[in-house]
Order: sequence, then C-alpha cells, then structure tokens
Amino acid sequence: MDPKKNKNNLIGKSIPRIDAPAKVTGKALYTGDIVLPGMLHGKILRSTVAHAKILNIDISAALALPGVKDVITAKDTPCVKFGNWRLFPQTQDELPLALDKVRFIGDEIAAVAAISAEIAEEALTLIKVDYEIIPAVFNVDDSLASSAPMIHDGNPDNTSNISLDRKIDVGDIEAAFKDAYYVREDSFTVHSHSHAYMEPCASLAEVDSEGRVTLYTSTQTPYIVQCLLASTMEIPENYVRVIKPSVGGGFGGKMELRAWDFCSAFMAKRTGRPVRIVLTREDELAVGRRRHGMKIKSKVAFNKDGTIIAKDFEAYLDGGAYNSMGPTATFLCGNFGAMIYRYPVYRYRGYHVYTNLPPSGAMRGFGAPQALYVSETQMNMAAVDLNIDPIELRLKNAMVTGDKIEGVTTISSAGLVESITKVAEMTNFLEKKKNLPKNKGIGIGCYSFISGGVFNWFNTQYNFSSCEVRVYDDGTAHLLTMSADIGQGSDTVLRQILAADLGLPVEKIRLTAGDTAMTPKCDLGTWGSRVTLMNGNAILDASKKIKEQLSKMASLKFDLNVIHEVSFSDERVYAKANPKRGITFGEAVKMWVKANRGEELTARGYYTPRDKGLTTPAYSFGAQVAEVDVDPETGVITVERITTAHDCGTVINPLGVEGQLEGAIQMGIGYTLCEQFAMRDGKTLNTTFLDYKIPAAEDMPEIVSAAIDTYEPEGPFGAKEAGEGLVIPTAPAISDAVFQATGYRCKELPITPEKILRATGKI
Amino acid sequence: MDPKKNKNNLIGKSIPRIDAPAKVTGKALYTGDIVLPGMLHGKILRSTVAHAKILNIDISAALALPGVKDVITAKDTPCVKFGNWRLFPQTQDELPLALDKVRFIGDEIAAVAAISAEIAEEALTLIKVDYEIIPAVFNVDDSLASSAPMIHDGNPDNTSNISLDRKIDVGDIEAAFKDAYYVREDSFTVHSHSHAYMEPCASLAEVDSEGRVTLYTSTQTPYIVQCLLASTMEIPENYVRVIKPSVGGGFGGKMELRAWDFCSAFMAKRTGRPVRIVLTREDELAVGRRRHGMKIKSKVAFNKDGTIIAKDFEAYLDGGAYNSMGPTATFLCGNFGAMIYRYPVYRYRGYHVYTNLPPSGAMRGFGAPQALYVSETQMNMAAVDLNIDPIELRLKNAMVTGDKIEGVTTISSAGLVESITKVAEMTNFLEKKKNLPKNKGIGIGCYSFISGGVFNWFNTQYNFSSCEVRVYDDGTAHLLTMSADIGQGSDTVLRQILAADLGLPVEKIRLTAGDTAMTPKCDLGTWGSRVTLMNGNAILDASKKIKEQLSKMASLKFDLNVIHEVSFSDERVYAKANPKRGITFGEAVKMWVKANRGEELTARGYYTPRDKGLTTPAYSFGAQVAEVDVDPETGVITVERITTAHDCGTVINPLGVEGQLEGAIQMGIGYTLCEQFAMRDGKTLNTTFLDYKIPAAEDMPEIVSAAIDTYEPEGPFGAKEAGEGLVIPTAPAISDAVFQATGYRCKELPITPEKILRATGKI
Repeated sequence: MDPKKNKNNLIGKSIPRIDAPAKVTGKALYTGDIVLPGMLHGKILRSTVAHAKILNIDISAALALPGVKDVITAKDTPCVKFGNWRLFPQTQDELPLALDKVRFIGDEIAAVAAISAEIAEEALTLIKVDYEIIPAVFNVDDSLASSAPMIHDGNPDNTSNISLDRKIDVGDIEAAFKDAYYVREDSFTVHSHSHAYMEPCASLAEVDSEGRVTLYTSTQTPYIVQCLLASTMEIPENYVRVIKPSVGGGFGGKMELRAWDFCSAFMAKRTGRPVRIVLTREDELAVGRRRHGMKIKSKVAFNKDGTIIAKDFEAYLDGGAYNSMGPTATFLCGNFGAMIYRYPVYRYRGYHVYTNLPPSGAMRGFGAPQALYVSETQMNMAAVDLNIDPIELRLKNAMVTGDKIEGVTTISSAGLVESITKVAEMTNFLEKKKNLPKNKGIGIGCYSFISGGVFNWFNTQYNFSSCEVRVYDDGTAHLLTMSADIGQGSDTVLRQILAADLGLPVEKIRLTAGDTAMTPKCDLGTWGSRVTLMNGNAILDASKKIKEQLSKMASLKFDLNVIHEVSFSDERVYAKANPKRGITFGEAVKMWVKANRGEELTARGYYTPRDKGLTTPAYSFGAQVAEVDVDPETGVITVERITTAHDCGTVINPLGVEGQLEGAIQMGIGYTLCEQFAMRDGKTLNTTFLDYKIPAAEDMPEIVSAAIDTYEPEGPFGAKEAGEGLVIPTAPAISDAVFQATGYRCKELPITPEKILRATGKI
Repeated sequence: MDPKKNKNNLIGKSIPRIDAPAKVTGKALYTGDIVLPGMLHGKILRSTVAHAKILNIDISAALALPGVKDVITAKDTPCVKFGNWRLFPQTQDELPLALDKVRFIGDEIAAVAAISAEIAEEALTLIKVDYEIIPAVFNVDDSLASSAPMIHDGNPDNTSNISLDRKIDVGDIEAAFKDAYYVREDSFTVHSHSHAYMEPCASLAEVDSEGRVTLYTSTQTPYIVQCLLASTMEIPENYVRVIKPSVGGGFGGKMELRAWDFCSAFMAKRTGRPVRIVLTREDELAVGRRRHGMKIKSKVAFNKDGTIIAKDFEAYLDGGAYNSMGPTATFLCGNFGAMIYRYPVYRYRGYHVYTNLPPSGAMRGFGAPQALYVSETQMNMAAVDLNIDPIELRLKNAMVTGDKIEGVTTISSAGLVESITKVAEMTNFLEKKKNLPKNKGIGIGCYSFISGGVFNWFNTQYNFSSCEVRVYDDGTAHLLTMSADIGQGSDTVLRQILAADLGLPVEKIRLTAGDTAMTPKCDLGTWGSRVTLMNGNAILDASKKIKEQLSKMASLKFDLNVIHEVSFSDERVYAKANPKRGITFGEAVKMWVKANRGEELTARGYYTPRDKGLTTPAYSFGAQVAEVDVDPETGVITVERITTAHDCGTVINPLGVEGQLEGAIQMGIGYTLCEQFAMRDGKTLNTTFLDYKIPAAEDMPEIVSAAIDTYEPEGPFGAKEAGEGLVIPTAPAISDAVFQATGYRCKELPITPEKILRATGKI
C-alpha cells in the first residue's frame, strides 16, 4: 500500500457516521421538523391536466377563507426563468409557478400560506383554474412526430421537442464498421424510476425586515439553491442564506431550486411570517424528479479476436416537461457510452426530448446506468456470438490507467482489469457458469463513474470546492464547508481526512456544513460523487497551510535544521527525524497565536479541477456478479448473491463504502426488477410505497465485496468515488444471470415476471 | 468638522436600529423563546440561609418524582472554581453549585431538569438540605469587625473578609495637605441597585454525542461564557459554542458565567436532552448581580483660588458573597477618583469586602458613578465654601486633552471644558441659580468614562476585538463579529461603520454576531463601553484590507498612476482624482475573484489597545444640569429638566446616542431617588417591580442635550463611548439641585422624601 494512504492510521479505518447517534435517537432535525414562531403552512396547487393554456386563475375564494394569509400565482412573481445549466441560459426553461401554460400533471400553478396545513389544503380546493387543453405527448416517439404539439416555444430550433443534443465523433465511423468482423446492433428501452429517498422535500423560509431570506431546505446543493432563488426573487445573491438541515437522502433528486423553495420564500416575504411547505410521499412519487427513461440504439463492431473496433451510440432521453438536469444526463450517457472499454472509433448522438410527463432529472449515476446497461448487455451478447467468455472479452478491451477518451478525459487510475479478474475469482465465475443448475443464472456487469464533474455548467466564478479550517490551542479544530451530507456520510469522511492530515482524533474536529452564509463560498454541493474528492482536496489544501504555520513553531522551538521535516500525528507536532523534539498540537497553536499577536489561526482551502478534460478528474471502476434463481412457474426472480470487486481508489472509510455498496445494490435490484411508474395519460397511478415497490430488507441478497487497491493521484490520499458507480452494474449483471437461467435477454427494463413468462412461453 | 469623520455621509447619520422591526413586532427570539425538540425545563434550588455549612443534601425524593429527569448537586460536578479575573486565579471564588457552604440567601445549591417547569419547581421543594448555620454579616463594617466570620477560606491574607485591595499613590499626600488653603473631608454612603434589565436571564443548552455543548444564553460576553463553561465542565474550550440570541438588556449584569449556564449544559450532557432554565423577575431582584454599595471617605485640598492640590480617597466596596466583577469596580473607583479634574497628588485605597449578601457585579459605569457622586458633590460643596461658582471651579481644574494620570493613562481627547461651558450656557446656569424660586433647585454634575478596558484581566491570548468581512460581486458584504448587541444598538453602529468605510448602503451589510463557533475569535464582549471603539477599529482594519485588494482592481482596470488614491463611495470604486474612472463595488469584487481564481474575498480585522496605560484607550467626558422641584410638604422630588453636554467624540449614530442618553437619565434618576433594595438579615424583600420602583415614562423630565464636537484619535472615525458615562452625572446634579431647593446635602444615596422631610425638620 502506498505510504501516502496510511496517514495516522485513520485513512482506511471504519468510523461510524457522525450523524448516526442523532438520527437513530430521533434527535436529528429535518426541515419538516423545524418550527419557527408565527410560522405559516404552505401548500402548492398543481396542474391536473398534462398540457394546457392557462386562461384564468381565480384565487378570490381561497383568499377569503379564514386563516389564509397569502395566495400567489405567477402573476404575483417576477417570472424569472431558472435552471441549473446557467452557462447556457437557453436551457433555463422553468418558472417557479406556471404563467401561461402547464406542461405536465403536477406542474405548479399557485401557492397558499395559511395558519394550518389543513386550511392551506382546503384553500387549494377553492382556487379555480380555467384551462384550454392542448394535445399532449407521453413518450419520445410521439413527441418527435411531425404532428406533435410544441411543449416549449423557445426551443433552439423551434421545430421539434428536442430541447438539446450532444454529439461526439471520434474517428471515421463508417470506415470502421465497413471492415468489421462482427457487428452487434440492438435497440434498448430503459425506464424511469424514483429516487425514493426517505425524506420528502420540504422548505421553510423567513425573511428579515431588509428582505434577506433564510431558507431551510432539504437540498444537496445549498449554493445552487441560493443563486437561483436570488435570481427568481430578483434580490442580491447574498441576501439569500440557505441552510441544509439533516437531509434524508437525495440521490440527485434534490439538487435544484424547486417551486416550494421559491414559494415559501416569496410568501414569507409578502406575509412577514415564516412559511413552511412539506411535500408528501404522494407528491414525490406523482410529480417528483426521476431517472431518465431512454431509447438507445447501439451498434458495436468487433474484430474476430474480440477487440472492439467501433461503436455507434444513439440515445433519446425522455426529459419530461422541463430540462432539469437533462443536459448532464445527455452528456454523461454519451460519455459512458464511450467507456468502460477502449472504443477507438466512437459516435454518439444524444437527444433530450420534451414530453408531457413529470421532468426527469439527476439520479444516482445519471446517464451512466442507462448507457452501461446497454453496453454491458451487448458485451454479454457479443461474448455468446463470438464464443469468447465474457471475462476474457472484457479483459481484452478494458480501459487501463493512462487510457484516453479523445477530447473528453484521461484515465488517471483504473482498476477495471483487476476488478474483473477479482470478481471472477471470488465467484468462480466461469466454472459456475458452465455448471448452472436449472433455473439458476450467473451474470456479470461492469461500471465506471465520475468523481465529480469538471464542466462548469452552473457557471460559477468561485472554486468548485472550498473550506476553512480553524485550529485552537486546546488541540481542537473547526472545519467549515458548504458540502452537503445528505446521508451518504460525507461529513464523517471529511472530518476523517482533516483529522488524518492534522494528526488529531476525529472527534476533535468540529464540523459546520451546509450554510451558505457561514461557510466559504463556494461548494457546488453533492452530486456526481464529487464530495470526497473535491472537498477532500480543498481540506488538504487548507490543512497544508495550517501545517506550514505550525511547522514554523516547532522549528523555532527546537531550532530544527531547515532540511528537517515536521510531522503531525498523535496530537503532536514534531521533528520527523526525532519525534521527541515536539510539542502538542495545542501548544503549537498557542505559540502561533502568541507569535501573531492574538490572531486566530485559520486557513482556507480550495479545489477546482483544471485541465482534466471535459468530464471528471477521476473515474472509479468495478465489476459485479449476480447470481439468481428464477421460478419457472411464476417468473419471480430471486437475487441470491451479489459479488462486487470495485476500485474507488483508497478506501477512506470502509464502513461508509460498505453502506454505499449495500444501498446501491438495493437500488440496483429495484431498478432492474420492480421499480416502475404506472402511468396513464401522463398521470402517475402508483403514488404510495404500497403500489410503488422498492426492495425491502427481506429482498436483499447475500453481499460479498472486495476493494481493489489502487491510488488515484488526483484524489485526497488517493481516493475517488464510491457513491454512484456502484448502482450501475447490478442491472446488466442480473439481466445476464436471468438470461443464463431462462434464455430471456432483456432489452426493455425492468425484468418483470410477466416478461419472463411471456418469453418462456408460459403465458 | 474633521473631514475624516464624514465618510460617505453615513457617519453622524441617525439610523434606526437593525433589530427594531423584529423587536417591536414580537418576532425577535430571546433565549426563553427558543424551544428545542425534547427539551427539558430546569430549575435551581437556592439557599434560604445567609451563611451555613452544608451538612447533607437529600435529592432522593426529587429524583423519584415522575417527570424529573435529572437532579444535580456540586458532588455530581467537577467543582472547578471560576471567575472573570482569570489573570489572578486567586480571585476565582465561585462554584457553579455550592459544595460545602452557602454564603448568601440565593446561593445555588442544586438543579433539577424535568419535562415541565411545574414539575421541576415541585421537585425543588422535595430536596432536603441540612445546614449548620454560621453567623452572617450584612454590611462592610460588620464584615471587617474582628469577630466577623470568615466568608471564604482562601482569602489572600486569611485574616479578614477583604478579598482584594487596590492602592494608587501619586505624589506626597501628607505634604500636599499640610500646606493646603482649604481642605474638604466627607464620608459618603452610596447604595446598591438593580440593573432591572427587561429580560431576566435564561440559558438553553444541548450537547451532541461527542460532548460538544451549544449554549444559548442571555449574555453580554459569549467568549467569556465559552471559556469559563469549558473550564467548569472540564472540556476543551472549543467544545463549547455560545450563541447569543436577542438580549433584553444587560448593563453589566450579564457578563459572567452563571449557575444556570452551567446547570443547563451539565444536565443536558447527562440527560442527552436540551435543558432550558429561565429566571423570573423575582429571582433577578432577589439574588441577581447589582451595583456595588460603597462607603467612601474623600479628602480634597484646594488653593485659595480653587485649584485642587491633592485628594485622598478611600473606598470600601460591599462585594457580597463573591468577587464577581468586584476587582474591576475597585480599580475603576480609584481611577475615577483621580478624575475628572487634575489632582497633582492623589492617594487611593480601595477595599473589596465580602459580606453575606447577593454578590455585586458590573453595572453601567461600575465604580465610576460612586466615585464621581462623591467627587462632584464635594466640588459643589467646595464651591460654596470657597465662594467660587461651581462652573468656574470646575473649569479651573478640568482635565484637558493631553492630561495624564500618572501610571494610569493619558487623555487623548477631552471635551470637558467645552461641555461645562456649553451646559452652563444652555441652562443659563449661573443666572438661574441666583434667582431660584422657592422649592426649586438647579445643580450640576460632570463625568468621564472609559471606552473599553485595557487591562487584560480575562487573560485572553487573542485580540480584544476581531471581525471578518466578506464581500461579494452582488455589491453586498458580510460582517462577522463576536460583538454582542444587548439592546444598546451596537449591531446598527457596527454596520454603519463598515458601510461608511466601504461606501455601501447599510442594508447591504449582512451581520452575523455573537456566535463563538462562527465568528472570529475573539471579542471580549459588551462591557466598559468598548464595542463601538474596539470592534469599530477591528472593522476598519478588515475594511482597509478589503479596500487594498479592490483598489488594485480599479487601478488595473483604469491603468491608474501609482500615486493616485482610490475612493469608495456610492457603491463605487474609483480614482479619487477622476471619479468617472471607476467601477461598481460588485464589479471590483468580481474582478478580484477572477484574478484570484475563484477565491472568496475576505479579510479579518483585529484591535487590541497597546501602550494605552492601564485603564482605557479613550475617555468620554460631559456635564449635566438637573432642575428640580421639591414639594416641601411631602418631600417628593420632581426632576423637571435634565440638560446634558457630552463629548463622546464623533457621534456615529445620533439616534443611538439619544437613546443611550434617555436611558441613562432614567437609570440615573432611579439610582438617585427611588431604586433601593429593602433588605432584612440578608434577604431581599422587594422582589417585584411593584415594590422595587424604577422610574416610568411619566417620571421622565424634559431632556435637552448637545454633543461637543471632538475627535478621538484612537476611535473609529473619532468616536468614543456613549453608553455608560451618561449615567454618572445625574445623581450629583440632582443632589446639588435638591440642596439648592432645600438646603439638604445628601451624603447617603438615595435621596428619599423621608430624608428631605427629616432634614427640613418636617418629621
């Protein structure tokens, strides 16, 4: 192991989550738990039709209801369009409340603030909306038909519902296919599903007498919400303070400004009282953000020996009614279409298409799970056709450290070969596959994912990640960061990184996070598995500055030779060559304060990836094997065991990675087998967890895993992502295992018992 | 007027208090308003005897009461003594809860935390304390008698109840008196009274799973509470976060760690639940801190022409049962005995004496009102004897800029002569005095006060005052300071100072204050009229650093000659010589962020007075005339008019100074005429505002005032204190006026109708 990794024995040590005691004892405060004096309760009126002009909204009866303090529609607001892709303002296609038309069932139309949630709810029923219905489209094909209604007026070309596209061209695609030994061409449909985070969204705003807003909101991205709320309210950015209380999961679904954020703040400003809006599970399932459903055509050319020559990849993303994070999904789908194998020639055409459905957005792996479901399934199909075992076929083509995607990125560390080899060994894959009992299957899927994004779509002028570290003579430190722990455990890992570097116990690090008025500007938040790498690097930057200062104190005190290194461990600052020549950390700080005439020792750290291509500074990799049993009579699939070998660089907190892995497998199984929206004419029918099935503890398989020992040069102590990538391989691995068990090769997720019974001729 | 003062037209402008809208609409949250989930209610058991050994405390019945979650006595705690004078640990004589003995009626013995305040109250009645009574002393004379019981075992000499003394010797006192033309020697008694702040003290603590305490408390000094709470709980200083919510007044009564702070934190740690303790008005009046009562002997020698030759000043302070801020009061009494006139020879003997009364502490002007009541009354008496009018006598001796108190301080600005002259003019003092109608009186009193203390009695290693200023490209700024606005309006003034210096409107300054975990370490808090000068200077230090950075941007953009100054006003940064060559403040920040590759522009500012003598960096001065009517039948005194001319340096916010002046007159009238504790055997009998009389709005006189135009070189924009000094002159002025009206010269405050009737032979 690289000695750089094992810093003070803390890196690689399983540390329980800092937030766990408060959460398991019920003390943690979520936005919906916070009560402010005089607080009003807000509710939002949503469109009941999928596509219509708004002719008139009559709020008079609602306003007259006793206890109602405010009712707003778009006409009361500045009507500033917003969206996360600020770099391209034409992608900003949402209004906080719909002005002239509604585009999906659930589109926000009006908001009420009242002295109780019940009165607010009743007031909603008194608002009368006159619609002029417009024909609606509920899938990509209909939306792209020449007769389709235009969902937005301001599209780039104004002639179709394609809101944006992404093209990648590497090499001569026509020539490459012409000479190919074997070409595999398939069409796939991958479906949408819900984040199903435990905490429905909520917002609580108060506004001071000078118009400054404090917004508590369940968010992954306090800075993004701050900026967009300010622009939609037409107030200075720094008049908005966003505080992230405890957040019960996000998975990409909480990284945007949302209507309730705006409405609670705007009504708080109008009424002079705090306004809280809490969504229900029904709201979340019916109209919440979701994973992009896609139609993907993929054509891959191989040499006779299995070497990939070229790939032609085309994706149509069902974006729903607004862009949301669709641009990124369109981009990443193309990026991961070009991975995780070497594709010397690659063409990608990605189209983000508006439909009259609830908008799709970011969701764990956004774009990658869809692309890699297709790619990995095609690899398994090609292996059959080429009569090469799927392990060998993968190893032959797998990306390795130093590989490049032209114009996109360079792979600075890759443990894919090792992961594939390891997972095959762990499962005795080839042997087991040859000797499968009846109705049993074993399959493999591989993945890669980004460790944070490089492309500055939010167009911030600040560093991507920042922090401040203050240290004290009592031997403690204070880490201030705008990073947002939404349940993934980043607060724990960030403390661990700082503690390891300063040589302090983790509990001596006070952490303040997720408050835009208190913590250094900026951090772009939690998405794209960016926190550990990006904020970790910012922390090491700040820590380095602190250590430089304290090293001077030890050097002064012990008259150290200028060539001597000063070390930090065990709460001491000492000459590395002679540890006895040292003082406690607290004493060193005290000396510094004296030497600096009473100043507090503090340092800021920053990280922005520069010259790291277009996508990410570092990629994780891994391979997963699923073993399944399929009941031939019912078609029910039981996932018996999931074995994973993954490369997330240095594992900083094994306990945290384990949690991510288990959660990813749960989400991956749900995606593959059961989670699906039942839709009728744009309306979501399954809006409770009774109807919308997510795997429960009893549905979980045996889980086996191994971490591949790699070192990512760009990551803190060699670490890279472990948050999202792990959700990717489960679908192709299960799908392949189901094929082994049943002969049914799924090109249309999810794999339901019905599909299996149909494929096997049982129904 | 000095051009330095008029910065962007904001200095000298009346600006309403930033906290006013929230306070008048009831939205402001005081500690007692804050409710945390799962919160317990705490109550404190107090001694019912004045002096006793504690033989046993039986808490079993209280613990058994349903709903009681914790009961603590000293034995459950670390028993670490504390006190504000950390520099001299022998002065730290308090325990959070009494261990082996109680020293006054009200001494804290035990604390209870329960699910309701009622249950906690009931539990107190179930705690049984066995005492062994010790004789008690309730005044300085009895306490200093040879037969007196020792109240503390660990006194410096262990032979008397004098806890500490202070001696000042300037020149040969015996020689000076020998040759004097006129010597005036008097003994005075000045009494104790209550701060009577509107908000009784309260504390609310929660403790996280790692033992970090967050304490909300009604305090003037978050940093002091942080440090002392940490030491009494034996945890690292930075495990304590003190947050100061809205505070309803303090006047010196809220500048220490108090038993409720400790008990709420300690019980929160034990129970794992937040604990809130809210005092009642009865608690406050019965056992709260109060002004030091003193016995003062003063002997002053004059030449025939009225020039003062020498002064011999001796004060015995009734400290009550603990030192509290008594050392400072003892020190300041001697300091102000040597002011506000030139005393070429001066001797001071000050003794702080323990008694079995509630401890005295800091209170608006601590030490100065008592000393100056005596001095000013003696000046008025000497004027009669010497047949020199009191204006002339004062002008002859008044301190002027550049005067020194040997070994103590240099007066860097003094507007005393101008104040005396001005107030005499404004009131037509001499004419009016010569022609007084029957039962009418007119009198004069003068004052000086410190603008913050220099002597580092808290023994902090940090700067006395610190702040951070962050600026943003939206043209706003954020000021972070540990300063504590307790109602005096400092938040408003501090924003005004920063806004003036950066050339921004005040409302564009976000202010975060009074949170030890968020704001720069440290600021010593609100006492000694220190905030405007000290934090103001820290702010100007930070602002200078910000402006240096932004000046570079303007210089770069307009290719300014290196000799050109860059100005900041009207939200612009521009060449002073050519204002057209400028950019908006926000644009300058944006340029800086670009030039610094995404860093946030922030600067810290610090201020510590250095080489400013022992007492303060700057003295305020002023003179006040009171006009009274005395009813000869009832002895009731009506204060008809108070006229003040005062020198607080540059007036930053006239509205704020006006508020201080009015409040000070109200407090001064109460002190002089009616506020007094009714005590019997150490027990306070008047514990409600029905029995303890403070002047109400209807008791207020006509108020006239003028600010003397001076410039204090050490103060921000030339400002010095206006918070405490103004409370000083009212007592001697009224007392002198009463003498003019009745012939009664008061040497024992307060001046009650009874005293007047006795003096005039009516009873």
